[in-house]
Amino acid sequence: MTDRRTALLNAAVEQIAARGTRGLRVEDVAQSAGASTALIYHHFGDRSAFLRAALEHIGDRADAYTEPPDGEARVMLLGLLTDEIQDNPEVRTNSAAWGELRDTAVFDAELRPTIARLTRRWVDDIAELIRFGHSDGSIDARVDPLSTGIALSALVEGISGRWLTDQMSTAEGRDTLRTGASALLNAAQTAQVPSQ
Amino acid sequence: MTDRRTALLNAAVEQIAARGTRGLRVEDVAQSAGASTALIYHHFGDRSAFLRAALEHIGDRADAYTEPPDGEARVMLLGLLTDEIQDNPEVRTNSAAWGELRDTAVFDAELRPTIARLTRRWVDDIAELIRFGHSDGSIDARVDPLSTGIALSALVEGISGRWLTDQMSTAEGRDTLRTGASALLNAAQTAQVPSQ
Repeated sequence: MTDRRTALLNAAVEQIAARGTRGLRVEDVAQSAGASTALIYHHFGDRSAFLRAALEHIGDRADAYTEPPDGEARVMLLGLLTDEIQDNPEVRTNSAAWGELRDTAVFDAELRPTIARLTRRWVDDIAELIRFGHSDGSIDARVDPLSTGIALSALVEGISGRWLTDQMSTAEGRDTLRTGASALLNAAQTAQVPSQ
Repeated sequence: MTDRRTALLNAAVEQIAARGTRGLRVEDVAQSAGASTALIYHHFGDRSAFLRAALEHIGDRADAYTEPPDGEARVMLLGLLTDEIQDNPEVRTNSAAWGELRDTAVFDAELRPTIARLTRRWVDDIAELIRFGHSDGSIDARVDPLSTGIALSALVEGISGRWLTDQMSTAEGRDTLRTGASALLNAAQTAQVPSQ
C-alpha cells in the first residue's frame, strides 16, 4: 500500500519536473504509475491535496540525497548544500519540481503554507548544523543560525535556477554555491568592518 | 507606435505575473491593452517571440527602478540589489513575471538564450560596480567581480522567491538581502581562513 502511494508520488514529481504543475494531468500520473485515477483520489483527496503531497514527497526525497557523512559541522553543512546540485537525474527532477511548485505558489495561495513549512524545515536543518558548528568550533559563534540558514537556502534556490536553465554546469553550480556559502559562513569574522 | 508597443508589453508582464506564462492568452493581452491580436503578431511575430520580448521588457523595467543614486560603489551596489524587493506593485509584478519566465525556461528551451543574456547583463552591471568599488576603495580588491556578481544575483533571485510567496515581508527580504550581500562582499577579507 505504501509502495503504491510512493509510486504515485514519484510519478507526479516526474511529470511536474517535465511539464510543469499547470500541465499536470492526474490521469497521466495514474497511467504512468500503472494505477487508476480513482486510486489517486482515494489516497490523496482532490488535485490540490495531491500537489501538496507531491511537494512533501519532494522534501523527503531531498532529505535522502543530501544526507551528509559524519564529520565537522562546517564540512557537513557545505556537503548538505552542494548536494542539492548533482549530476543525477533524480536530483535534477526533484529540484525542477520543487522550483516549479514554489513558482506556482506565487499564483496559487493554497500551496503557500506547504512551501513555507518545508522551507522552514530545511532552514532549521541548516541552523542545527550551524549550532553544531558553534560547539565543535568549525563555525564562528557569531554566525547567527536562523538568518544565515535563510540566506544559505535562498542562495541554493537562486543557483539551482541557473543550473536548471543550463546557465551553469553542475560543476560551476556546485563551485559557486560552495564559495558563496563559505563567504556567508565567514561573515561574522568581518562583522566589525562597516558594511555601508 | 513605440507607446503602443510598450503598452502591449506592459500588459503581457501584468498577465504573466498574475496568471503565469502557460495561462497567458495573446487575445487577453491585446484586449487589456485596447489593441487587436493582429497588432501583437504584427509587432512581435509569434507567441514565443512575444514572450521573449516581454522578458526583455522586464529587464528594461528593472533597470529603471533599480537605478542607484551616485555615491560610493558599495552603497550603490547594495542599493541596486535591495531595490529588487520593494513595496511597489510594479516591482512585485516585474519580479513575479521574471521568476515565472525563468521557471518556464526550465521546460521551454526557446526562452533560455534570452534568460541567459539578460542574467548576464545584470551580472555584468554588478561586476562593473564591484570594479568601481575596487577603484574608490569601498570594496576589497580581492573580491572577484564576475563570480561575486553571479552569487549576488542568485541570492536576489532566491530571496525574491521567498518574498513573492509571502514567506518574508518586504522589510525582511531587504534586510536578509543586505546582510547576505554584505557578507559576500566581505568574503575576501576572510579568504585566508581555511574554508573547509
